[in-house]
Amino acid sequence: MNKAAIYHRPESEYAFLYTANELRVRVRTALDDIAQIMVVSGDPYDAPNGVWNKQEDLVMTRGLTTDTHQYWEASLNAPYNRLNYGFIITGLDGEETFYGDQGFEAVLEDDAAEYDNLMGSNSYFKMPYFQEIDRFKAPEWVKETVWYQIFPERFANGDPSNDNEGTLPWQPEDHPTRDAFYGGDLRGVIDHLDHLVDLGVNGIYFNPIFEAPTNHKYDTRDYLAIDPHFGTKEDFKELVDKAHDLGIKVMLDAVFNHIGDESPEWLDVLKNGAASRYADWFHIHSFPARYTATDDFETARDATYETFAFTPHMPKLNTANPEVQDYLLNIATYWIREFNIDAWRIDVANEVDHHFWKRFYKAVTALNPDFYVLGEIWTSAQSWLRGDEFNGVMNYAFTGSIVDYFARRKISAEKMVSNLSTQLMLNRDQTNQMMYNLLDSHDAPRILSVAQGNKDVVKQMYAFMLLQQGTPDIYYGSEYAMAGEQDPDNRKPMEWRKEKQDHDMYQFMKNLIALRRSHVGLLVNGNLTFDVEVESDIVSFTRALGEDYITAVFNAGERAFSLPASLELTENQILLSNGYADQSIRSDGFVVFASK
Amino acid sequence: MNKAAIYHRPESEYAFLYTANELRVRVRTALDDIAQIMVVSGDPYDAPNGVWNKQEDLVMTRGLTTDTHQYWEASLNAPYNRLNYGFIITGLDGEETFYGDQGFEAVLEDDAAEYDNLMGSNSYFKMPYFQEIDRFKAPEWVKETVWYQIFPERFANGDPSNDNEGTLPWQPEDHPTRDAFYGGDLRGVIDHLDHLVDLGVNGIYFNPIFEAPTNHKYDTRDYLAIDPHFGTKEDFKELVDKAHDLGIKVMLDAVFNHIGDESPEWLDVLKNGAASRYADWFHIHSFPARYTATDDFETARDATYETFAFTPHMPKLNTANPEVQDYLLNIATYWIREFNIDAWRIDVANEVDHHFWKRFYKAVTALNPDFYVLGEIWTSAQSWLRGDEFNGVMNYAFTGSIVDYFARRKISAEKMVSNLSTQLMLNRDQTNQMMYNLLDSHDAPRILSVAQGNKDVVKQMYAFMLLQQGTPDIYYGSEYAMAGEQDPDNRKPMEWRKEKQDHDMYQFMKNLIALRRSHVGLLVNGNLTFDVEVESDIVSFTRALGEDYITAVFNAGERAFSLPASLELTENQILLSNGYADQSIRSDGFVVFASK
Repeated sequence: MNKAAIYHRPESEYAFLYTANELRVRVRTALDDIAQIMVVSGDPYDAPNGVWNKQEDLVMTRGLTTDTHQYWEASLNAPYNRLNYGFIITGLDGEETFYGDQGFEAVLEDDAAEYDNLMGSNSYFKMPYFQEIDRFKAPEWVKETVWYQIFPERFANGDPSNDNEGTLPWQPEDHPTRDAFYGGDLRGVIDHLDHLVDLGVNGIYFNPIFEAPTNHKYDTRDYLAIDPHFGTKEDFKELVDKAHDLGIKVMLDAVFNHIGDESPEWLDVLKNGAASRYADWFHIHSFPARYTATDDFETARDATYETFAFTPHMPKLNTANPEVQDYLLNIATYWIREFNIDAWRIDVANEVDHHFWKRFYKAVTALNPDFYVLGEIWTSAQSWLRGDEFNGVMNYAFTGSIVDYFARRKISAEKMVSNLSTQLMLNRDQTNQMMYNLLDSHDAPRILSVAQGNKDVVKQMYAFMLLQQGTPDIYYGSEYAMAGEQDPDNRKPMEWRKEKQDHDMYQFMKNLIALRRSHVGLLVNGNLTFDVEVESDIVSFTRALGEDYITAVFNAGERAFSLPASLELTENQILLSNGYADQSIRSDGFVVFASK
Repeated sequence: MNKAAIYHRPESEYAFLYTANELRVRVRTALDDIAQIMVVSGDPYDAPNGVWNKQEDLVMTRGLTTDTHQYWEASLNAPYNRLNYGFIITGLDGEETFYGDQGFEAVLEDDAAEYDNLMGSNSYFKMPYFQEIDRFKAPEWVKETVWYQIFPERFANGDPSNDNEGTLPWQPEDHPTRDAFYGGDLRGVIDHLDHLVDLGVNGIYFNPIFEAPTNHKYDTRDYLAIDPHFGTKEDFKELVDKAHDLGIKVMLDAVFNHIGDESPEWLDVLKNGAASRYADWFHIHSFPARYTATDDFETARDATYETFAFTPHMPKLNTANPEVQDYLLNIATYWIREFNIDAWRIDVANEVDHHFWKRFYKAVTALNPDFYVLGEIWTSAQSWLRGDEFNGVMNYAFTGSIVDYFARRKISAEKMVSNLSTQLMLNRDQTNQMMYNLLDSHDAPRILSVAQGNKDVVKQMYAFMLLQQGTPDIYYGSEYAMAGEQDPDNRKPMEWRKEKQDHDMYQFMKNLIALRRSHVGLLVNGNLTFDVEVESDIVSFTRALGEDYITAVFNAGERAFSLPASLELTENQILLSNGYADQSIRSDGFVVFASK
């Protein structure tokens, strides 16, 4: 037995309350090493006369696998809300061992005596009390949401009167420069809400809309003002109200790691130096706060203050300062109190301290217990996802593997499955339901460009992604198969000319979103199993809940692939497909089918 | 290479700020599997022209080992307070792999290209920003403290006028019953502060002193009153002030999981049922709150409310109720504000929610940033030890292995070393400095009884424990070698009769405490390495800091053991010993020596 590979961690993604009364536990072992794991459990104090009154032993279910690991899962209850639990592990080599809080112990013959002999109950792992208040909560509406990301300057120009000076004509075929303006605004979004309803999405994630000099507005000047080129607070109020009437939720972008260097606070520091009342709002190593300007607007190597990356125009805020905390929390709650927004997406979330995010989460959920907090974190994010900071993060770490397999052809199907499984096992099940799945964004090349224009591959990836557990996102314009390389090319003006729009892609996306929304219960809660056929480069997965299931089969190989004859799909079973007919999937095609 | 055994977890005991500028990282691998680990690190944004400007690669140090694992350690800095890091691992089999946030990758030849090729910086683990506010802080004074635990009813009767009715004569040879009273009180402690000073301890941990019916007072009636049989608030004020004048810190016992069933709040519930204003202060499944009394005072199987264990006299508090939180936090701060206590020891700490402990930690450290919060948790306690709940826990999980080896003879020296190392690697280094090391307490049999009266073995264990990193504790009476079986036999009246006291043990303890305190810098901060000689049953360890070291060698074998001739200890080097002479340690003896 490869004991060195066995891992469990109490009160983590390896042991978490899924509901108030259900503790889900996981164990990680080496792949192909273990025959069986049994869970021994019971109340820690329920041992009349020293004989433990334990619950019935439970055989763990085999869960996801990776290149290196097998995960095992079980669900436990506790008669008195308290639980001791341990694992009896049997290796394929026949060895049997007890694994608990004090490591490995030989398994004794007599279970009752065992409890007492193993230094009392302290040999067991503990969920000392099922604390509902500490449980990670997943707002129901997020599970049911399909998001649509809008980069406001480029979605639609509804009010030319508020355009910047030098605004360019709305030409989707442009390759925008970093400092171009095209006139997109909130009125443009209001005018096109019917488009979103028709497409079927029911959540909008807006890139920043607060007053700021650039087109992307990540260099905030005033967090309490709508950028005048985007419109007014009345416009935003109208937008939120109309969206809500249409069943669409609204998420704004909170840039709290740093502020713009044209903000009054920073200008005051520049003017008054160490004497500024804002001097401690930032991380200034020496006064005066300064840097040497170069041709590269975004880079200064000699700034005397800390910045986002090396961008001198984005001085980093000192969120350990209670004044700064109060300032930012007022902003965070203002847009909820006054405009009833449903969610915050948090920019550069991992570079701000946990202490602040805990205050933030408390403040926003006090106003709305179903509020959604989404962090921008590109890597594993366990320490933010314990239930008192963020509900989810932008899931690049997960979806990146889908893109690496289908579009970039950098990894094998097996490696993709291994990576996806690894990522899923980093989080609690309810956290996975809150993860924000996306194929591209304002920070990544458009997916069609990554796929080198292959729309079939794009369809495979969207289908793959929307059938996963997380809450999916579509970047504006993807429904019309817009292309675009890395920033700023991925921020082209939206294609509104009917004759230039890809109506086939639109219909596909519409069908896929409808499929997601009509089967959302199964897709959010269902069990996931993968299957890979290496030789023909076929990957498939099944999502199952009770008797119901949905299976998706993807052909990434070069030849057509025939489904096993035993499957015999009926027309009725098929929920969605591309390049599928008569039990056969052509190269770059897929089929999604349901239980009969 | 046993890849399945390799483990690292960002922002945990595997990656933590030790000081504001030092990130300590650990990697766990299988034992005897890996030849070398190198750390690759650098600022995540510092990649001019796409070439990563990384820091110099660093070879990791071999750390502690267990039965199954080898730990590896390194210290990292970050020029801009942000750090990406990853590990290049070379197996004994010659295989080389890169291990980072996305798992294992083949190592590329060209380091610079590698950064870019591994999906940009997201293949690396991250310490996104060195957040001083999130860092686990270890109060300096705790490191320098040797604790003395006082069970107040049994330490000394300084004021017979406040005795309970039926108080028994002070007879240390008694085997106390569960409900006996002997008259110990605060005046008794004040009268014997000179004893503590002479012994050399500089911290007192008091079992509960608040008003409560029992002798142990874990069934609080009034948290804001000193039990009248223990004295008055004036007495307690005098005690704290005098202790502080003598350089002795004071820790009280906070019983916040449950309250006594004679408290006004519970009596109100009994009287008014669901209509009581305290109805939601508890976990009551159905009204009326009731249970069936049996001969067993401490057990009721049919209580309609939740209790500590199955004790109907200790109804569990609902700490998710903000009113209860405010009530308890007022208590927690009252004794700091009014009496300037230095620490809280928290009873049944793991059965109260994290949400509450975070509020608690904030409230007490707001009054005194150096306040020490110690949780009673007998098992691994990582989720309470992240820096915003407890500083340390009662370290039974650690010290239990020392007792199991030396006194119970249940495990081998190798197993003890493996267990101790496992426990140390569950925590950040500064957490280990805050762990409360103890051989016994009011909740465990007295160590002399566990050692079946063998005082040499008791001396071995105390020496072993006081040379470890954690903050050590001595249970009242151990300095005179008092015996006692499990509760209530371990709560005998203190032996104050000179002729009955063990003066040899007293002198030993005094010398050992003096050794601890005079070398505390090395003992708290020094590196730890173990050595075991299986055949002769010798275990030794060395604590080293720079050029200085202290080594302790323990003979648990049946024959005398001669130190290697190469050692040639001089008289000056020897700091403490028992059963040692001329380079030889007799059975159950030990020697502690320092660098020349």
